[in-house]
Amino acid sequence: MGIKTYIERVTDDLYVLRVDDANIEFFEALWEIPEKISYNAYLLVKEDHVVLFDGWKAEYSQLLLESIGKVIDPRGITEVVVHHVEPDHSGSIPEIARVSEKAVFLGHPLAGRMLSSFYGVRRFKPLQDGAVADFGVKARFIHTPWLHWPETAVTYLEDEGVLLSCDAFGSYSLPPLFDDQADFTGLERAARKYFATVIGHYAPFVSKALEKLNKLGVRPQIIAPGHGTIWRRNVDQVLKLYANLAGEELGGEATIVYVSMYGNVESAAQLVEKALKERGLKVNVYKFTDKARASMGDVLESISRSKIVVVGASTYESEVQPLMRYLLGIICEKFSYRKKLSFLVLSPYGWSGTGGKKLGEALRGFGFSRVEVVEWEGRLTDDVSKRMLDALERVL
Amino acid sequence: MGIKTYIERVTDDLYVLRVDDANIEFFEALWEIPEKISYNAYLLVKEDHVVLFDGWKAEYSQLLLESIGKVIDPRGITEVVVHHVEPDHSGSIPEIARVSEKAVFLGHPLAGRMLSSFYGVRRFKPLQDGAVADFGVKARFIHTPWLHWPETAVTYLEDEGVLLSCDAFGSYSLPPLFDDQADFTGLERAARKYFATVIGHYAPFVSKALEKLNKLGVRPQIIAPGHGTIWRRNVDQVLKLYANLAGEELGGEATIVYVSMYGNVESAAQLVEKALKERGLKVNVYKFTDKARASMGDVLESISRSKIVVVGASTYESEVQPLMRYLLGIICEKFSYRKKLSFLVLSPYGWSGTGGKKLGEALRGFGFSRVEVVEWEGRLTDDVSKRMLDALERVL
Repeated sequence: MGIKTYIERVTDDLYVLRVDDANIEFFEALWEIPEKISYNAYLLVKEDHVVLFDGWKAEYSQLLLESIGKVIDPRGITEVVVHHVEPDHSGSIPEIARVSEKAVFLGHPLAGRMLSSFYGVRRFKPLQDGAVADFGVKARFIHTPWLHWPETAVTYLEDEGVLLSCDAFGSYSLPPLFDDQADFTGLERAARKYFATVIGHYAPFVSKALEKLNKLGVRPQIIAPGHGTIWRRNVDQVLKLYANLAGEELGGEATIVYVSMYGNVESAAQLVEKALKERGLKVNVYKFTDKARASMGDVLESISRSKIVVVGASTYESEVQPLMRYLLGIICEKFSYRKKLSFLVLSPYGWSGTGGKKLGEALRGFGFSRVEVVEWEGRLTDDVSKRMLDALERVL
Repeated sequence: MGIKTYIERVTDDLYVLRVDDANIEFFEALWEIPEKISYNAYLLVKEDHVVLFDGWKAEYSQLLLESIGKVIDPRGITEVVVHHVEPDHSGSIPEIARVSEKAVFLGHPLAGRMLSSFYGVRRFKPLQDGAVADFGVKARFIHTPWLHWPETAVTYLEDEGVLLSCDAFGSYSLPPLFDDQADFTGLERAARKYFATVIGHYAPFVSKALEKLNKLGVRPQIIAPGHGTIWRRNVDQVLKLYANLAGEELGGEATIVYVSMYGNVESAAQLVEKALKERGLKVNVYKFTDKARASMGDVLESISRSKIVVVGASTYESEVQPLMRYLLGIICEKFSYRKKLSFLVLSPYGWSGTGGKKLGEALRGFGFSRVEVVEWEGRLTDDVSKRMLDALERVL
């Protein structure tokens, strides 16, 4: 498939170099993303400095060099700032290191250790947290640990008001280069999904990072992330979105996620869906059936907007149904910082129930206290329906 | 999509009624089956008896009635033998019960409880284990618990030498009606995969059932299962296959299954693949990457032929990578009866390793003792490669 790249000015001196990864199906080999993802590197050309911020995935190394070459000879790169060594950004570093012989690699000390162990690249100089480098423009290097790895950092180009944020504020999908070329709603959804899948597990560190940036007087005019659109119109909105996503306060919607082998769980889920809608809640339903599967990333994105999660799966081999065990494990790990989330577990069985109980125990084990479990034998009778709606009442 | 059905004589009095489920993607909402699956019911028409053995999925109820109607008026059905109440076979029972007003439903007492709780069908008469019913021909009802549910049974038509085996000896895919119309190799693969995914967890009960059938003098000429081809040429082979699949003895092949986010795990897996091939082993590789995913059912089918399983996945958020946690959980549950299986775990990490250790602990927790774990930081160096090959040596 033809791979699309972009080279465009973000400011007078700063270029975005973006590649749209049309070959990917599963980000991190984990998240289904039919909407795809982009990798954004940035190139600062100012006075004697040619500074590359981050890069692309290994398979696009040559394309990155070609893109740089359309701005300036890549052999002239003086510094490479490595905010984050995950290979979707750093995979092209070995090629850059080979071609740009005089480039020095800069980053958090841990990034240096990773560059060495991942790629054998040792032309590294550590940056201190808060240090201001002179790249012709002042560039403040700020360590933002666990956003999304321990070495992760951002750079604030103070004179230009540009925050180079790498994973933070990144999005899935292949949106326009700049956020003023599209509606915020769709962009927000793509950023939410990225947060929920990749960064959500470290939400408390996001709050800390936002506080840190604020204390340092970082008031960006432009936020230029490593994935997706560049924020220049909705900067305040996306900062607010992150504060909201990282916080413990719940959204107002409802998420229903279920695995239905033969339709029994589905009937129960539909009953609860109806009851939730009657209470005026927006309900988002994600089905895993014999015919189709929802995307796990969409489930997480929806939960980030929800106050209640309805989970449906039958007992399977006297255990939790394996696909639901997988889904719920991820949900718990990603949302363990939102302890006020309510859960309603719907779990039928053929001859003896254990799956539902175990789902309930798993949720409580992760520290969720608002958990109701309804197990029942066989089909959805009036009695079972009543138990279900009563349980919903208790957990809402 | 057009749904294909078959009506054909198995013996003078016995018809197979088969529907090919072209709409399905995930059997049990769990197993990826691009090869699809069929549901086989059987109709015995002899003297005053019109006996239906099992049925189809609910969505094909009308089609089943139409198919029966091409042989005989379904209102004339006298008995319905319910070997197994899982809805892929029993989903059409409510419609049959509605139309065939005088039909009595027969099965293990637990099947009666399930018919009542699943469908509200109470026109039930329990059959005793070993009872011989007179359907115009002698039909011996044999309880084969956990093959694949606790109520599951088979019927042996003694005069005709036909074993109606429901899930046992069933296959995925849409093979010819009879096994003499295709090569055994492909049919065997489809039966293996069905066993590994659906029945494998209960393997010890399969051995017991085979012994029980043998003691009862069941020497079928024809094995007529609820899914896939009818065995009439390869009866001995498929009985032997089941004895083999249910036993603790390992196959001679190697299975490699890995989740590779950015290619590092893949490099390690390729190294081990080469080493295994150099030792003359047949190696089957199943990849879960950013571009494609193998099918879990194929992984299990391969393990049923293997003596060693190589598992590759990096640490993820200080835990086992979630997709591998899912895969390995299923592998352990399905093959816990094959304790002699060897496992080699390959697990890189970025800054601290835990995923590999935890995979090793999970395997040992399931009772596997031949487990080696190799964790390493960063890329595959010569030193890491050596550790890996040494570990392989110890576990082979």
